[in-house]
Amino acid sequence: MTTVGILGGGQLARMMALAGAPLGLRFLVLDATPDACAGQFAPMLEADYRDQAGLAEFAGRVDVATFDFENVPAESARWLAERVPVFPNPRALAVAQDRLAEKTLFRELGIPVPEFATIDSREQLDAALASVGTPCILKTRRLGYDGKGQFRIKSPADADAAWQALGPQAASVGLILEGFVAFQRELSVVAVRGRDGELQAWPLTENWHDHGILSASLAPAQTDAALQAQALDAARRVAEALDYVGVFALELFLKDGVLVANEMAPRVHNSGHWTIEGAETSQFQNHLRAVLGLPLGSTRALGHSVMLNWIGAMPAAAPVLAEACGHWHDYGKSPREGRKVGHATLRADSASELAGALERVGKALGRESQVAPVIARLRD
Amino acid sequence: MTTVGILGGGQLARMMALAGAPLGLRFLVLDATPDACAGQFAPMLEADYRDQAGLAEFAGRVDVATFDFENVPAESARWLAERVPVFPNPRALAVAQDRLAEKTLFRELGIPVPEFATIDSREQLDAALASVGTPCILKTRRLGYDGKGQFRIKSPADADAAWQALGPQAASVGLILEGFVAFQRELSVVAVRGRDGELQAWPLTENWHDHGILSASLAPAQTDAALQAQALDAARRVAEALDYVGVFALELFLKDGVLVANEMAPRVHNSGHWTIEGAETSQFQNHLRAVLGLPLGSTRALGHSVMLNWIGAMPAAAPVLAEACGHWHDYGKSPREGRKVGHATLRADSASELAGALERVGKALGRESQVAPVIARLRD
Ligand SMILES: Nc1ncnc2c1ncn2[C@@H]1O[C@H](COP(=O)(O)OP(=O)(O)OP(=O)(O)O)[C@@H](O)[C@H]1O
Ligand SMILES: Nc1ncnc2c1ncn2[C@@H]1O[C@H](COP(=O)(O)OP(=O)(O)OP(=O)(O)O)[C@@H](O)[C@H]1O
Repeated sequence: MTTVGILGGGQLARMMALAGAPLGLRFLVLDATPDACAGQFAPMLEADYRDQAGLAEFAGRVDVATFDFENVPAESARWLAERVPVFPNPRALAVAQDRLAEKTLFRELGIPVPEFATIDSREQLDAALASVGTPCILKTRRLGYDGKGQFRIKSPADADAAWQALGPQAASVGLILEGFVAFQRELSVVAVRGRDGELQAWPLTENWHDHGILSASLAPAQTDAALQAQALDAARRVAEALDYVGVFALELFLKDGVLVANEMAPRVHNSGHWTIEGAETSQFQNHLRAVLGLPLGSTRALGHSVMLNWIGAMPAAAPVLAEACGHWHDYGKSPREGRKVGHATLRADSASELAGALERVGKALGRESQVAPVIARLRD
Repeated sequence: MTTVGILGGGQLARMMALAGAPLGLRFLVLDATPDACAGQFAPMLEADYRDQAGLAEFAGRVDVATFDFENVPAESARWLAERVPVFPNPRALAVAQDRLAEKTLFRELGIPVPEFATIDSREQLDAALASVGTPCILKTRRLGYDGKGQFRIKSPADADAAWQALGPQAASVGLILEGFVAFQRELSVVAVRGRDGELQAWPLTENWHDHGILSASLAPAQTDAALQAQALDAARRVAEALDYVGVFALELFLKDGVLVANEMAPRVHNSGHWTIEGAETSQFQNHLRAVLGLPLGSTRALGHSVMLNWIGAMPAAAPVLAEACGHWHDYGKSPREGRKVGHATLRADSASELAGALERVGKALGRESQVAPVIARLRD
């Protein structure tokens, strides 16, 4: 009997436990919040990530540990890794937690990145604005998510406002200035690397955001094989450089036929949720297979899938459930503004069938604007 | 927040909870055994099915109740149904618990059944042997499963031995004598009926048994559309007669182009486990949708699937996981002779691909005899 420990008890841990049950696994979820939604389907240990007594108990009760939450303090991950196998390894986690470290690595590996510069002071911001150019984005290096901790700079005149917004965080989480990429599309590649170094990737996924939060994903993305190869190559370089084990995602901008790397998520990723129904093996099951040293399952897509994120509150389920191809995912969370509370996946054999279902669902839920860009792409 | 109560905490309850989590459901499992395997992923209430205090607590904590175990005492089901909605309804459960009642119903509905006669005494057995003819099978009316409580009678000379084996149970669970059907194949139809009367069925499944226990299932069965229609028609008649809500299975013998009904299982069924990966919607999720009055999901098959049952102990997982189409299901039970501890599903786009995978898995696990009849059928 193998027990997998998961640091963080959100929807990713929840879906991981559901996917891991058929492998005969037990789980233990560490989270500071007693009502973390993974706790509805897996035993929980209530403790802060920095609480050493909690971590020690956790280490004593699990055979291997992994992450639902990417911002677990790197020292906690390292402390744990001295006691129990931890995948991905703490160094990989630390790099992915830091926009400067990950972009530096990408550049070293020959993966295209936006112009960027580290910013520690107001003076550096001025200098970087000149070298990086405008438009650009000032971001916190650490602890940003869902578009939080970002300030868009249109011209050097915005420097004051940007510094006022994020300057106070320069000392604690660090800042980075990134050139704005005038991309045509946003894509992601979700990949998995086994303990033995085997690497597989699901088909490229196209993503649409709303106010910085993922709104919809389409997989496979309507792109050519050359881009898929480019993405797979980038994923392989990053994973090998970090000796990464498990699932991770690279968020990419497509600009003039080139994939520019935005960031890396060292965990299962929202843009891979469609794999539950839309791929032979889901990202959640393959993450566990990787972490346990089991053979990886096929990442092949089954038809065409669209994932729609539900933010803030769940809409009515019936219009999705009424579609032959409709699948519902309610994370069992209470509603809260900006919170990811669930998603739906529509999966169909043909793009046109999928577009039809998407149109009906969008209309029935009054979410025409959420589905419109996906329908347009499917009908390209 | 809806809590579904499940009477019985075995693998069916476990897979139901895993399938219901994405619907945002909570579960409460009632079982007398503290280590019932569903308890690894759902809260448990430890109590006997006849314990009224336990049932009362259960009723108070759930919004709707259903079954993992078909032999829950009918009075307990009725008692519960006065307090909380119970699906399937207690009458349907009672009929399906009794081989005499279900065969009588099938015959009334014009569904072919073997010859049969109720047996209360040794004298009746002699008379029935003359009317039903040999070969035949003496079975307990109630509480039989996995081929237990059966005695095969080749000629009238076996009457003494049969009565010695099962006569003592005549008073407690009743006996039935059934004509032996010299079938060409064993099939089953798994169907689901919603609260609104909508009925859907998954494709017919062919089943192979080993010592009375299901060993392998192939879906869709290699049969013609006429048989599928015949099975759907039988399922519809039975479900409507019982005002059935939820998933159920009809076990059928195929003899000379006719489907002869053997028995009905008033619950999700082992021959429907392939639907987890092999159908657009699994039997587990559709059972919950039916019980909750939600729209039913499509029962369409995705390619060809084979389910292999693991009895007694789990074999090595690696040969199955190494197949692109291999899916593993370990129920988290401790090994015990004759116990259903897990299953594997292989799913492929073509029959020949599936046969190839099955051959490799059978060989790697030293289970050539388990896979051989399925491979033969796939290569017919
Ligand atoms: N350099 C850039 N050029 C153009 N657009 C950008 C750039 N950086 C970020 N964006 C836009 O802002 C969105 C959020 O940015 P980013 O992924 O860096 O933030 P995040 O908070 O980590 O988001 P998430 O939690 O979704 O990963 C991106 O999806 C993209 O639409
Ligand atoms: N009347 C019959 N004629 C021929 N074979 C029969 C007959 N009844 C039962 N069998 C054989 O015995 C097997 C088990 O019988 P049955 O399904 O009645 O028992 P069970 O204990 O309820 O099994 P399960 O738990 O698998 O449903 C059948 O699958 C079939 O192979």
